[in-house]
Amino acid sequence: MQETLTSYQQRNNQQLNLWLEHLPHQQQPLIQAMKYGLLLGGKRVRPFLVYITGQMLGCKPEDLDTSASAIECIHAYSLIHDDLPAMDDDELRRGQPTCHIKFDEATAILTGDALQTLAFTILAEGNLNPNAEQYRIKMVQVLAQASGARGMCLGQALDLGAENRQVSLAELEEIHRNKTGALINCAVKLGALSAGEKGLEVLPHLERYSNAIGLAFQVQDDILDIISDTETLGKPQGSDQELNKSTYPSLLGLEGAMEKAHTLLQEALQALEAIPYNTQLLEEFARYVIERKN
Amino acid sequence: MQETLTSYQQRNNQQLNLWLEHLPHQQQPLIQAMKYGLLLGGKRVRPFLVYITGQMLGCKPEDLDTSASAIECIHAYSLIHDDLPAMDDDELRRGQPTCHIKFDEATAILTGDALQTLAFTILAEGNLNPNAEQYRIKMVQVLAQASGARGMCLGQALDLGAENRQVSLAELEEIHRNKTGALINCAVKLGALSAGEKGLEVLPHLERYSNAIGLAFQVQDDILDIISDTETLGKPQGSDQELNKSTYPSLLGLEGAMEKAHTLLQEALQALEAIPYNTQLLEEFARYVIERKN
Repeated sequence: MQETLTSYQQRNNQQLNLWLEHLPHQQQPLIQAMKYGLLLGGKRVRPFLVYITGQMLGCKPEDLDTSASAIECIHAYSLIHDDLPAMDDDELRRGQPTCHIKFDEATAILTGDALQTLAFTILAEGNLNPNAEQYRIKMVQVLAQASGARGMCLGQALDLGAENRQVSLAELEEIHRNKTGALINCAVKLGALSAGEKGLEVLPHLERYSNAIGLAFQVQDDILDIISDTETLGKPQGSDQELNKSTYPSLLGLEGAMEKAHTLLQEALQALEAIPYNTQLLEEFARYVIERKN
Repeated sequence: MQETLTSYQQRNNQQLNLWLEHLPHQQQPLIQAMKYGLLLGGKRVRPFLVYITGQMLGCKPEDLDTSASAIECIHAYSLIHDDLPAMDDDELRRGQPTCHIKFDEATAILTGDALQTLAFTILAEGNLNPNAEQYRIKMVQVLAQASGARGMCLGQALDLGAENRQVSLAELEEIHRNKTGALINCAVKLGALSAGEKGLEVLPHLERYSNAIGLAFQVQDDILDIISDTETLGKPQGSDQELNKSTYPSLLGLEGAMEKAHTLLQEALQALEAIPYNTQLLEEFARYVIERKN
């Protein structure tokens, strides 16, 4: 899987770079900051999910570039805004100064805004497989649903509201199903829609899979915030505790959280069993989610 | 025109309210702030342009609600982010506390983000005239183009880069063609696309019209910042001068700026002459742009 991951990471970077190179005013801080936020590292988990889901369903990489690029723009914008002083106030991301440190706060706000817009430009203008053309508007809908007040933005708002107080496990799950899960789920959906009709048929299983790994991803993030170190993470270790955030380890204990991650992995693997295609990469990815070190 | 404006304002408010009422977590500050930013006043210039352009081309109001609501979401999000401390740092908007004053900065950032997303949700999911269905993705494209790094966000970035220094008239025009003009232009385009084929035929004339009134709108804004008062404006009078912003009056003198506004009005009216439909409301609107007091 590592090889496939690296190759899709590179492909995604090239694609994103193409979109950015076509913008006017390349010397503007706005455009520079868009490149900085979008191209400087990142695991490319969401694009990878688009690619391996679509690939499983018979898509060529060029059928998937549009969805993969669009969803990474949404992710990148959310990181830039989450790092702002008024939000999580983080100065380090992927081992580099965050956007508002490197540039300034106004530029960081605008950059996030423009990256969100770029996601929808890409979905509206980018190449799709002819079979998927009829689902283009559905893709816009799915991405918007996952990003806004029914998805990621809601999750971030719920998360802000949960600072400095104890939340229940159900609340914590709702936060993360929106904050992280919605976009992970969306990646798999976009991959499926890029394959047209064929993708729709297996969508319910893919949704079950992605719901499980989306949550597992966050559980593992919470675990890493405790057991990893700042250098490996590329962001300050222990920042959850500093903000008094409720996390899976704080509610379930470290061992309980690890158990939760494994239960979610099992659920993801079970969901894949119902899919009549080669699910090997999706399977490996599910394992990677809870075994990764950063 | 005033009557039509009021009736479309109300219609637009009702439509926006419907979209907001369907969101989950109504008690969340995020949703409350979305309502606050979207429903508390505002001239509804962009929705109005959608409605009167579409109406001229034979659309019913219900054919135009989707475009009108979507574009107002983009406008509302941009005001919330522009008012932030790191941007224009305004505490008053439409005579009310700005979003980050009424709520807090984190909520204001997220609210703007979620309103941008809502715009694309609305365009993807809202009702259209069956004739316009084939242009739905084009509408997404047009709205994204006008909002992001080729339009409004670029304009705001150029504007930030122009603070505290003298800019040329050409630079000032480029700032405003992007910052304000792009969305005014987009409103007219969305109105035209909502009418299907018929709208495409007159699009070049409509573009010329909207480019002229978009710029005229900003020239008049600059003039009002000098000759009006805080109560009439609903925002602090004289704030351009305080930020040392280059404006049309600062470059052309107050009289020169007024002349510029009139020249642009003539250009807009000329463009309308080539359109073989009843352009009365578009004409009245062009006059209103440079005669308005707030």
